Amino acid sequence: MVTLLGISGSLRKGSLNTALMQAAAALPADGYRMDTAGIHGIPLYDGDLEEAEGIPAVVTALKEKIIAADGVILFTPEYNNGIPGAFKNAIDWLSRPSSDMAKVFGNKPFALVGASPGNFGTLLSQNAWLSVLH
Amino acid sequence: MVTLLGISGSLRKGSLNTALMQAAAALPADGYRMDTAGIHGIPLYDGDLEEAEGIPAVVTALKEKIIAADGVILFTPEYNNGIPGAFKNAIDWLSRPSSDMAKVFGNKPFALVGASPGNFGTLLSQNAWLSVLH
Repeated sequence: MVTLLGISGSLRKGSLNTALMQAAAALPADGYRMDTAGIHGIPLYDGDLEEAEGIPAVVTALKEKIIAADGVILFTPEYNNGIPGAFKNAIDWLSRPSSDMAKVFGNKPFALVGASPGNFGTLLSQNAWLSVLH
Repeated sequence: MVTLLGISGSLRKGSLNTALMQAAAALPADGYRMDTAGIHGIPLYDGDLEEAEGIPAVVTALKEKIIAADGVILFTPEYNNGIPGAFKNAIDWLSRPSSDMAKVFGNKPFALVGASPGNFGTLLSQNAWLSVLH
């Protein structure tokens, strides 16, 4: 059984990207399972906050889910021709401390999917994700 | 007198980018003045929050500062080969509602500056900003 983790980068209840993720999780291919996660409760990244209080529990929990998955699918909205700040902010936290980065992200396949009411389907957001995931 | 607005994209008290902005503001060229601003207190963008409570006062205040300036300089850190999520999040709020976007950003010159302890000086962050500012 291959286990995938979907992460929706929208905070909206009626998010198209969350809906797409849930639809995908409900229709797994044979031999695949897809778990789902979100970014609710992750605070704005601030190095002073990290130094004072460490990594927030909600971030540690999401890191563990990524570690447990065989691959991750980011369901990403696009805001202003780029990655939604709130979603990038979640990844900024997930990459901390940098000593954990190889454990969380090393050799882990990531895929990008996006839903949008516009005609370009989050193209520029996905493009901006490439250098981050690299 | 040409009035510039510097915005630092770091939340850290000891931020190199905030220090660079303050040093620049203290040494204006003849005929120039530089005001400074930050992104503290701007919440994570959530369309449901905007619908329920409107634009946060801290965002409206920063929009007014941008409108009043002849040009804006973004002092941007780089996280994970991209724009810090918290800084992009601030721009996502500043672009709302979209009916105000021309008033805030239209024909307004933006410049990018970054300070980093690394050797590449926020190159990839500045690159990611280009499609957003476009």
